[in-house]
Amino acid sequence: MFADPSDRVRAILDRIAPYVKNDLPEFERRLLVPGAEFRDLVPELNQLRARVKADGLWAPWLSKDLGGTGLSLFEFAHISEALGGSPLGHYAFGCQAPDVGNIELLTEHGTPEQKSRWLEPLARGEIRSTFTMTEPEMPGSNPVLLGATAVLDGDEWVLNGRKWFSTGAEGAAFAIAMMVTDPDHEKMHARASMILVPVGTPGFRLVRNISVMGDVGSDWASHGEVVYENCRVPKANLVGPRGGGFALAQERLGPGRIHHCMRWIGICERAFDLMCRHAASRQIAPFVPLATRQQVQFWIAESRAEINAARLVTLDAAARIDAVGAPAARIEISTIKFFVAGVLQRVLDRALQVHGGLGVTDDTPIAWFFRHERAARIYDGADEVHKASVARYVLAQYGVKTR
Amino acid sequence: MFADPSDRVRAILDRIAPYVKNDLPEFERRLLVPGAEFRDLVPELNQLRARVKADGLWAPWLSKDLGGTGLSLFEFAHISEALGGSPLGHYAFGCQAPDVGNIELLTEHGTPEQKSRWLEPLARGEIRSTFTMTEPEMPGSNPVLLGATAVLDGDEWVLNGRKWFSTGAEGAAFAIAMMVTDPDHEKMHARASMILVPVGTPGFRLVRNISVMGDVGSDWASHGEVVYENCRVPKANLVGPRGGGFALAQERLGPGRIHHCMRWIGICERAFDLMCRHAASRQIAPFVPLATRQQVQFWIAESRAEINAARLVTLDAAARIDAVGAPAARIEISTIKFFVAGVLQRVLDRALQVHGGLGVTDDTPIAWFFRHERAARIYDGADEVHKASVARYVLAQYGVKTR
Amino acid sequence: MFADPSDRVRAILDRIAPYVKNDLPEFERRLLVPGAEFRDLVPELNQLRARVKADGLWAPWLSKDLGGTGLSLFEFAHISEALGGSPLGHYAFGCQAPDVGNIELLTEHGTPEQKSRWLEPLARGEIRSTFTMTEPEMPGSNPVLLGATAVLDGDEWVLNGRKWFSTGAEGAAFAIAMMVTDPDHEKMHARASMILVPVGTPGFRLVRNISVMGDVGSDWASHGEVVYENCRVPKANLVGPRGGGFALAQERLGPGRIHHCMRWIGICERAFDLMCRHAASRQIAPFVPLATRQQVQFWIAESRAEINAARLVTLDAAARIDAVGAPAARIEISTIKFFVAGVLQRVLDRALQVHGGLGVTDDTPIAWFFRHERAARIYDGADEVHKASVARYVLAQYGVKTR
Amino acid sequence: MFADPSDRVRAILDRIAPYVKNDLPEFERRLLVPGAEFRDLVPELNQLRARVKADGLWAPWLSKDLGGTGLSLFEFAHISEALGGSPLGHYAFGCQAPDVGNIELLTEHGTPEQKSRWLEPLARGEIRSTFTMTEPEMPGSNPVLLGATAVLDGDEWVLNGRKWFSTGAEGAAFAIAMMVTDPDHEKMHARASMILVPVGTPGFRLVRNISVMGDVGSDWASHGEVVYENCRVPKANLVGPRGGGFALAQERLGPGRIHHCMRWIGICERAFDLMCRHAASRQIAPFVPLATRQQVQFWIAESRAEINAARLVTLDAAARIDAVGAPAARIEISTIKFFVAGVLQRVLDRALQVHGGLGVTDDTPIAWFFRHERAARIYDGADEVHKASVARYVLAQYGVKTR
Repeated sequence: MFADPSDRVRAILDRIAPYVKNDLPEFERRLLVPGAEFRDLVPELNQLRARVKADGLWAPWLSKDLGGTGLSLFEFAHISEALGGSPLGHYAFGCQAPDVGNIELLTEHGTPEQKSRWLEPLARGEIRSTFTMTEPEMPGSNPVLLGATAVLDGDEWVLNGRKWFSTGAEGAAFAIAMMVTDPDHEKMHARASMILVPVGTPGFRLVRNISVMGDVGSDWASHGEVVYENCRVPKANLVGPRGGGFALAQERLGPGRIHHCMRWIGICERAFDLMCRHAASRQIAPFVPLATRQQVQFWIAESRAEINAARLVTLDAAARIDAVGAPAARIEISTIKFFVAGVLQRVLDRALQVHGGLGVTDDTPIAWFFRHERAARIYDGADEVHKASVARYVLAQYGVKTR
Repeated sequence: MFADPSDRVRAILDRIAPYVKNDLPEFERRLLVPGAEFRDLVPELNQLRARVKADGLWAPWLSKDLGGTGLSLFEFAHISEALGGSPLGHYAFGCQAPDVGNIELLTEHGTPEQKSRWLEPLARGEIRSTFTMTEPEMPGSNPVLLGATAVLDGDEWVLNGRKWFSTGAEGAAFAIAMMVTDPDHEKMHARASMILVPVGTPGFRLVRNISVMGDVGSDWASHGEVVYENCRVPKANLVGPRGGGFALAQERLGPGRIHHCMRWIGICERAFDLMCRHAASRQIAPFVPLATRQQVQFWIAESRAEINAARLVTLDAAARIDAVGAPAARIEISTIKFFVAGVLQRVLDRALQVHGGLGVTDDTPIAWFFRHERAARIYDGADEVHKASVARYVLAQYGVKTR
Repeated sequence: MFADPSDRVRAILDRIAPYVKNDLPEFERRLLVPGAEFRDLVPELNQLRARVKADGLWAPWLSKDLGGTGLSLFEFAHISEALGGSPLGHYAFGCQAPDVGNIELLTEHGTPEQKSRWLEPLARGEIRSTFTMTEPEMPGSNPVLLGATAVLDGDEWVLNGRKWFSTGAEGAAFAIAMMVTDPDHEKMHARASMILVPVGTPGFRLVRNISVMGDVGSDWASHGEVVYENCRVPKANLVGPRGGGFALAQERLGPGRIHHCMRWIGICERAFDLMCRHAASRQIAPFVPLATRQQVQFWIAESRAEINAARLVTLDAAARIDAVGAPAARIEISTIKFFVAGVLQRVLDRALQVHGGLGVTDDTPIAWFFRHERAARIYDGADEVHKASVARYVLAQYGVKTR
Repeated sequence: MFADPSDRVRAILDRIAPYVKNDLPEFERRLLVPGAEFRDLVPELNQLRARVKADGLWAPWLSKDLGGTGLSLFEFAHISEALGGSPLGHYAFGCQAPDVGNIELLTEHGTPEQKSRWLEPLARGEIRSTFTMTEPEMPGSNPVLLGATAVLDGDEWVLNGRKWFSTGAEGAAFAIAMMVTDPDHEKMHARASMILVPVGTPGFRLVRNISVMGDVGSDWASHGEVVYENCRVPKANLVGPRGGGFALAQERLGPGRIHHCMRWIGICERAFDLMCRHAASRQIAPFVPLATRQQVQFWIAESRAEINAARLVTLDAAARIDAVGAPAARIEISTIKFFVAGVLQRVLDRALQVHGGLGVTDDTPIAWFFRHERAARIYDGADEVHKASVARYVLAQYGVKTR
């Protein structure tokens, strides 16, 4: 109701609808074929992207001077949901992670050279990028703990370290690397910086695509393990201020969580629709649809309730960020992360169970989502990290420090 | 954010605040004293009500011609939350069930005589009323199944049957009775009617106050079992059209659920505050507050997330009813009933557990809420009834009839 | 199967059965009448106890020389379940807390004088006792934190401090008090001792019966708050070794948890039976019992599965204690505490919900159990305390100290 | 304790231990390599099987005359758990589904010819088999609904229909096919029969290996979709009596569920160990292991409690089947199916979450189990089917028919 899309957004949604209904499912079908590789779909996906651009629908969240529509976070949220129902929706419309985050980062903090050389082609979808922050030997729950370093040697940064879960590293044109540059700074949060590393720079090595839930993946649809070994880049490749790595990382997380959460809600609606369709069409006895089973009905009702709630809390957080900025909305940003991830997992689990044996097969996209979105409770701050954060903010109001 | 109270409502909330902070806790404390009876508090509660009226805060949901402020459902929702944190808030401000529902009913469907004789003093809080619908021998989940009857005998209805969970029957001036008047009507939903029965009419008998979770209760704070034995009232005591009982009952339920849900959210916030206070002040070792325990932190975070979600879905449903009417918002009205009741139970359970042994005592109001609000998942349509309804509405869109 | 009662126990169960079927429900019915007090039932309960004794069924867990049957923990467990289905079963058969624990304590550690003066009449049920350990100002989760002290002054202990949740303090003949006697002992766990305090000793004061979930209770069925104010008792009233308080408290907890868990399983079976009866008899439409609802069926199935599991883990723990002693069974003893308490709460919640409105009334014993057994997750070590203990034992095997 | 393995079984477990510790993990590691195929491991797995046989450890559940040890179900259960911790354990020791079930079937109901030609080489592991019962177009929840038919034409059965989830169909030497042979029999449960179909028979066609959670699989580690198209086999290939298909299917399910449940418990223990190891070794800050987090501790404790309970209920059911037969243990057999599957899913979920990002990778076996054992709540009767069965058995004791 009060969170309904504006007329402007509704118009965009109407124009996106045919893609969501026809093109994306066709690509999804091909992606789910056993043995299919994302990289084999890229040429045709590029044609689809061209049509999207020609229709003026490319990357609607982008600022107008970068070729987008300049939507607010709240406005884009509705579109993110619409695209999220397909694994390829965000990619097709130029809204995919981690490029979105890198674009936001360079828009805000890039030098003019960084913008013209990297940001602009990235925003146009001509190149892709990756983000190398998480480290295999360090707990993701404590971003202050980093092992990778960048040492200034004359006019160059010399990078060393190991990173993983670098989405889309295969085929990326450049990486943003989070490295410890000032290990002795008295403030833990001022020790790291972000540095732009062109792929191909000697010493930058994609070790492997990590096999995730049985999928090695390829191209954008992959998660790389990257090693920096005496990798040298110009001093000018620093993004933002020296020691500003954590602040920048935090900055990208607020909007990032809205994007993720709305995408998850898109997945929820997709799974919900598949669940209802199957319940309505599968007969458990002649002329008796599965939908007559009370357990199935209750799962539908509980899912409806939870998805509605998930959407409202996410849109509320988006509106808050738009209005007062991410720092003032930090409780909301953290609560939606674990709340919506939990809804996602439960809805997928119910949809799968309603499908019975069919649910675990790749004949529907449910198993794909079930496998690949289990990580929703982990990436971008595990549930537990966000719960601790919320409690810290709340309890501070009661005069207690919990960290 | 977008669901925040309007300025008009915020001003009312500010004026209510001192009552919420000072008066209500004082009365609550006295209510929780072992052996205390609500009826003993009535004289002083009446003085409090007089002050509320003098401040122009009486029954803000009432239409202006009945002496209220004429707030929309969405506007009143915020006030209902503020009052809900105390067991006596709604009573003190003239917003208590079942009088609210009876006032809405008589406002909409009462005859001029019914209005002047019963509605007006009721709206002023000079009398109280009860609602006799549920029957001990019939499942509340199927409102079409009623055993109590009213037969027209000349100019009088003759009522017979047994009802229970008639809140505030003790001390009520009149009852609205849901009776089968047309048992052979071909439409199940057109067989019952509502009839106004003045207490004191021969044949109307309050058998007992039902002992609920250890409390027999008294006066308004009680749930009566009522028997009608050849109880005769004038034909003119019919409320609304003959056979319109179910339609009227449905009508009162939509807004009623908003009232309940917002009141529950008020209870949630109260319990949340108590939980945080205790976590912050109770030491588990010297200088180590309970709040340092991760489980306590996670309960706080989960509760914060769930309460926020509960508030948004309820306000969204209220805004929908305001905008398009209850029938068009029936999915939302049913989802909030079980969703918010579930949140309430979990939040109370966590708050109680955080208090340890203290939590089960009556030294805090938590145990009182824990006992008395377990019924939230039952009254006004059990969780299961609402889940089935939501599924029915949803699955109808998929071409399936589940009933 | 392998956990079935032995023939000896089965014979006892057969003889107990008529009491369980006839006498206990009759007393329970009277206890649930609004306003009823346990103390009013005592005279007739004493007659029942006399019959139990005459039948040779009194306190079957007692050693033979104290007049019992000398059952093993495993054997008594089955009997404890049978008696647990009624709130009065354990009392009627002389197996009620805290007397059982005090009897075990004095049997093992009492002096000859303590035995003849206190233990023997206690074992015969002629007097009652209480146990004063928990303190309102200290966290129950950390038994090392105690504020109450006993100082040796000549030949007397001088006791000071405040205790609560002293079950049955009203009407008890004596209390066992857990007091800090050696505050400076280097080992935290060697600072407290147990001291026997006859009620009536100057300085021993029962401040109040704590109102728990709306019930102040009376006599055995109450939880007292007790103050010791310069209360003097002879030096010889020390129970067990000086500084041995914690060791003794631990000792009583192992068997105590078996007793509690089996009693809870008795409650579960009782609630399960009530749930099934109601599902079978309540009609939701003519000739359509509530039992046809899938949700009700699933709750029955889930409850059956969980109760079976709860019984097996408890009997397994009992058999382990019998075979190798409580310390070697500490993981099992801690797991059953929270596992079975969780099952109890879920089964009661489902049974209540299946009963609908009737479930929250005192017309069935479900609401009574729901109120009074919420504490099962708190007393005798909260769930959270036991979970931390289990993790500590397990992780120690992985070389980690978690405390 | 009372469910501990017998000395005989303990001796076998000791001899199995080196395989479990060394050989199976090595094969598992190779199976988890991206792109690895089970079929490529078969030659070396055969060598492992040869060693197992040489050690006298082959198929210990087999009757002695078939070369096994003749263990009871209860005895074998402990061994099944030990083997279950690896995806390849049961295969390596000749205990893998569906061959176990087919061996039991042919042992009990095979003709002498069927035994010599098929059973004996199958028991020796020289050939494999499949079981074709479930149909894609029919609900697995209602085994009476089958579309596939076998019509007697002279001395031959002519089979037509489509089956799926035929484990190990690729590479199998024969299939047991569940077909409707008597569609007009008045008793629904007497309409189907089991027929042995040698692979290679014209009209038997393996359409595909179904892609399950991203894996097409191969050889034994695959789930086939099979079509029968005018497939003719001799009349003598009937297994058991005509019309006895359902009875035989039921017969194989009782022991089959013990096998599955104990295998799941083996997986649980494996995941539990991995979770504890990771919690103990991963540092979240210098010298601060992840195990210090209370949430991790609680997951460990809850998992310990649930796994213990799962083992006891399964062993109890096994002992019952041994003692009184599967029909008399049907409540227990159905409760363990959903109870243990639920424990499995929760333990895997917690173990995965404790591992953070590592948990979703294939660098540990947890993701493999997470993907492939989601089906545990579906195959062999979905949770919902078993819950309905338990309720039916229970409610029948209360005089209600729920079907």
